[in-house]
Amino acid sequence: MNQVRVFAPATVANVSCGYDAMGFALQALGDEMLFTKTESKEVVISKIEGAKLPFSTDKNVVGVVAKLMLEDSKANFGVDVQIFKNFKPGSGLGSSAASASGSAFAINQLLGNKYSNIELTKFAMQGEVAACGSAIADNVAAAIYGGFILVRSYDPLDIIEIPSPPELVATIIHPQIEVKTEDSRKVIEPEIPIKTAIAQWANVGGLISGLHTSDFDLISRSLVDYVAEPARKHLIPHFDEVKNAAIEQGALGAGISGSGPSIFALSNGVETANNVAEAMNTIYKDKGIDYKIYISRISNQGAKVINPVSTSLQ
Amino acid sequence: MNQVRVFAPATVANVSCGYDAMGFALQALGDEMLFTKTESKEVVISKIEGAKLPFSTDKNVVGVVAKLMLEDSKANFGVDVQIFKNFKPGSGLGSSAASASGSAFAINQLLGNKYSNIELTKFAMQGEVAACGSAIADNVAAAIYGGFILVRSYDPLDIIEIPSPPELVATIIHPQIEVKTEDSRKVIEPEIPIKTAIAQWANVGGLISGLHTSDFDLISRSLVDYVAEPARKHLIPHFDEVKNAAIEQGALGAGISGSGPSIFALSNGVETANNVAEAMNTIYKDKGIDYKIYISRISNQGAKVINPVSTSLQ
Repeated sequence: MNQVRVFAPATVANVSCGYDAMGFALQALGDEMLFTKTESKEVVISKIEGAKLPFSTDKNVVGVVAKLMLEDSKANFGVDVQIFKNFKPGSGLGSSAASASGSAFAINQLLGNKYSNIELTKFAMQGEVAACGSAIADNVAAAIYGGFILVRSYDPLDIIEIPSPPELVATIIHPQIEVKTEDSRKVIEPEIPIKTAIAQWANVGGLISGLHTSDFDLISRSLVDYVAEPARKHLIPHFDEVKNAAIEQGALGAGISGSGPSIFALSNGVETANNVAEAMNTIYKDKGIDYKIYISRISNQGAKVINPVSTSLQ
Repeated sequence: MNQVRVFAPATVANVSCGYDAMGFALQALGDEMLFTKTESKEVVISKIEGAKLPFSTDKNVVGVVAKLMLEDSKANFGVDVQIFKNFKPGSGLGSSAASASGSAFAINQLLGNKYSNIELTKFAMQGEVAACGSAIADNVAAAIYGGFILVRSYDPLDIIEIPSPPELVATIIHPQIEVKTEDSRKVIEPEIPIKTAIAQWANVGGLISGLHTSDFDLISRSLVDYVAEPARKHLIPHFDEVKNAAIEQGALGAGISGSGPSIFALSNGVETANNVAEAMNTIYKDKGIDYKIYISRISNQGAKVINPVSTSLQ
């Protein structure tokens, strides 16, 4: 294989109670990238559409991850990369994670699937270090594995795939302001009351159990965040109004996607998800806030090959 | 029904990562109680064997719960209660919870099953208040529902039944010293680092997922307690040695049962559980510590009727 076009999904991390431990991949939103083998052994980013991102391969996470993997595998080739971003950095939807995991996945394809998913996640995490200074795994793991994932442990890295009911549909509203992950992390207290922690892990247990058994009511009751949401919601315009409107329209729950500013809701079925979108839409429209809305099922796969280009065409 | 003999299981609360949120019921260890309807509308405890406990129905949790339920239901009868304790109070195996939940279950039988399990749990929690000052639900819920339970929320009370693989066998060693729940609670810090909390809820998620999928390796990796065990283990003689010996013998994990001093281990199968018991046994024997060892499957039911006495015999 000399060329591969990949889709790398947007991802929702935290998922209310699962702060820094859970995430899921979206089916209908993500970046596309075209990787072409070159003889130079260099990584070159030749095109970026859809966002202002550095072309320098030391600063762009796509380049960082690609170089790392080509080095690690002692590859005898380089790559030319074209990046087509479909959602903005700083959205809370794992923009850097999509770039990093898409790069890891694509390079692995060109290497003949040398690496496992857990190894790809580790490479992609190095992209997150370049992007935000921390080797956070929740977005990249969701973007590699697809579906719902739990980062059970960082040392050693242990990613657990959690099944989820196919009826789940996410509605996401992205106010077009940027909240930097670093800023969003600063508002989280370094210590929390033990009672808050217990309530949070009880909900993690409830959410995981509800996802396993397709118990929508349990999923709904468990989608509560006592830790990040109270600290971060003031960074997001009209958060409470949007969340309450989503729940009034029948969403199972709603919360901050990753470190924000996007707000996600989960619904049982597309009809409810559409109603939720309509209600979210009305609020931001009335307030004069620029925004984008996405409706998507949970993707049961992570980064994937699209429109495969056969080697015979090269 | 004029008389009912019930078995109320011993229970393991916390289950390592699930501090104050999880518990499971044992099949092979528990108390027996005989409840007989009387015309006096009084609750009388006429016999207590196996432990020194108060006969006063305001001080004995069996009496507290029974009186509460007879009052609430406006029953036109009283009860005579005989209590046969098979394990000691202050063991960390839910002694008061077995009494309270057994009483709630038995009275409900005499009332023709007027109350649901969640209502019985609430009544039994009032017994826990009488016993230790807190309306803790993990032991009583496990003793009422059986199997593994998650206390997802206290307000409103929400008990989630978690399926578990039938191969799971608990080995428990109970050093014959008393650790009072109040004392054991005092050593827990009121605040914990957010990083510790995240690691703990990631393990709760892993444990719940492992129980759902019979993934013994995941259950094993998740049976880690960063919160209560480090603070409490010094209250328990040779805790680390016992735990390490259990794991060396193949236990999936081991930890403090409830607030101690009992130590539990979970194994895949009876053979391993027996080996674990042998190893635990050797350590306490060598140290000259008085102890009891129990080996038990997880009970898939909570308090239950035994040797039913038919009304025609009354």
